Amino acid sequence: MFKKVAIVGTGLIGGSLALAIKKNKLAASVVGVSRREASITQARRMGAIDSGSRSLDIVKGADLVVLATPVNTILELAPKIARFIDKKCIVIDVGSTKEEISARLSRIFPGYVGTHPLAGSEKRSIVHSSAGLFKGSLCLLTPTDKTNKKVLGKVIKLWLAVGAKTVDLLPREHDIALSFISHLPHLAAFSLIQTVPQEFLKFGSSGLKDTTRIASSDSRIWADIFLSNAGNIFKALDLFKNNISAITKAIAGKDRSKLVRILESAKAKREKLG
Amino acid sequence: MFKKVAIVGTGLIGGSLALAIKKNKLAASVVGVSRREASITQARRMGAIDSGSRSLDIVKGADLVVLATPVNTILELAPKIARFIDKKCIVIDVGSTKEEISARLSRIFPGYVGTHPLAGSEKRSIVHSSAGLFKGSLCLLTPTDKTNKKVLGKVIKLWLAVGAKTVDLLPREHDIALSFISHLPHLAAFSLIQTVPQEFLKFGSSGLKDTTRIASSDSRIWADIFLSNAGNIFKALDLFKNNISAITKAIAGKDRSKLVRILESAKAKREKLG
Repeated sequence: MFKKVAIVGTGLIGGSLALAIKKNKLAASVVGVSRREASITQARRMGAIDSGSRSLDIVKGADLVVLATPVNTILELAPKIARFIDKKCIVIDVGSTKEEISARLSRIFPGYVGTHPLAGSEKRSIVHSSAGLFKGSLCLLTPTDKTNKKVLGKVIKLWLAVGAKTVDLLPREHDIALSFISHLPHLAAFSLIQTVPQEFLKFGSSGLKDTTRIASSDSRIWADIFLSNAGNIFKALDLFKNNISAITKAIAGKDRSKLVRILESAKAKREKLG
Repeated sequence: MFKKVAIVGTGLIGGSLALAIKKNKLAASVVGVSRREASITQARRMGAIDSGSRSLDIVKGADLVVLATPVNTILELAPKIARFIDKKCIVIDVGSTKEEISARLSRIFPGYVGTHPLAGSEKRSIVHSSAGLFKGSLCLLTPTDKTNKKVLGKVIKLWLAVGAKTVDLLPREHDIALSFISHLPHLAAFSLIQTVPQEFLKFGSSGLKDTTRIASSDSRIWADIFLSNAGNIFKALDLFKNNISAITKAIAGKDRSKLVRILESAKAKREKLG
């Protein structure tokens, strides 16, 4: 499918995509870029990449570049990478926000398509990578009217080949959707665990653990996601606060039947999630 | 350990305790009370109880009564049950709040000890019961200075025998602890899933699922818990809102290093939970 794939950022997602490309023989060669030498060594040892470098010039000659660093690093590296690749090269990113990245990257790379695999976990780094990470997962694509259709077709094929289903969204829609399904839940989880007094942590059982699991996500990655999708997150947060108020009003007013009705409708919605 | 154990409320917790008592041969006979005939039939079929009834008089002659109904039903049934048992009978409840219940029940039953097994899940009813539910779990006990020491000793033995570790807390402490480790997380989870627009539910992945799993808990049980621990929950909620504000201020002020610091400390706390 590709001659040379360059993975910029050999972390959990980049490393897993590299492994999946290797396993499914989707490229003749895979190279990796990381700021950390240890990550490159580990990626090579795991067979995710054929060679790696801390320097960007290793992407030269690639026909697919995957930007798999944190959001703000993607924006930083993009113009530097543009110097090493030609116009036919397909470029995708796997960042968690899309409006800003998509606007900037589509101006830099003619062969750009925004993608966001909804896979991964609170764990990070190459050591947790696996070729099967994307199996049965959903990958959101954010093509615009400027996106080259052939390029889009090939990017869809890539994600299908590693086991993901794809859905197209406008970059703006993507960021709104993500503010609800991921960014607000993370903000809530971080805040929730902060609220539990140290002395009560020892009583935390599965409910608390599940509800706050994503609070052990990487701090810098999440700081950047929050900063890059602030407007949508604040809107989602306002709705969240309204929903909290609806419950607290029912509690304060001792309106049991209203309270049951609210919780019932939350439960019904949760059950749709599966 | 006991001659006749009466389980009032053969749901997930009552049913599991009955099964564990049977399995570990802790009682000569176990009887069950439920409002629903189907629950009694199922409990008998699963071997959780020897006989069951929708009528409370089946508790007659019990030396251990376990109140395992929702919080408000415990308060309702207690005086009725008192007519059928003698003063030597040990009475425990497994309710999720303790201050109100403990004050009322210790006046009604000389042999009362409040207990709260931190086991179970968003699933309920006898069909999800298992004899192993309490293995490796923590059971909070809320004895007061009025609690009979012998009775307390026997109740501790019971919970140890079914695989739980026990910790003593004052009823008031218990309710404060639970507002943080369970009630606020439930309130947040119910509100969080309510906030997600229907059309985005299909994009929900493991992060959203975990964070909102407990929102599929039973609505009536949770309405009663919220109502019976309102004061503590509101205090915990205020702290939660403060923690949300700290994050949103850092986002709004584009203060990345402060944001990273907050998320870092949340992550460190979450990792203590295991």
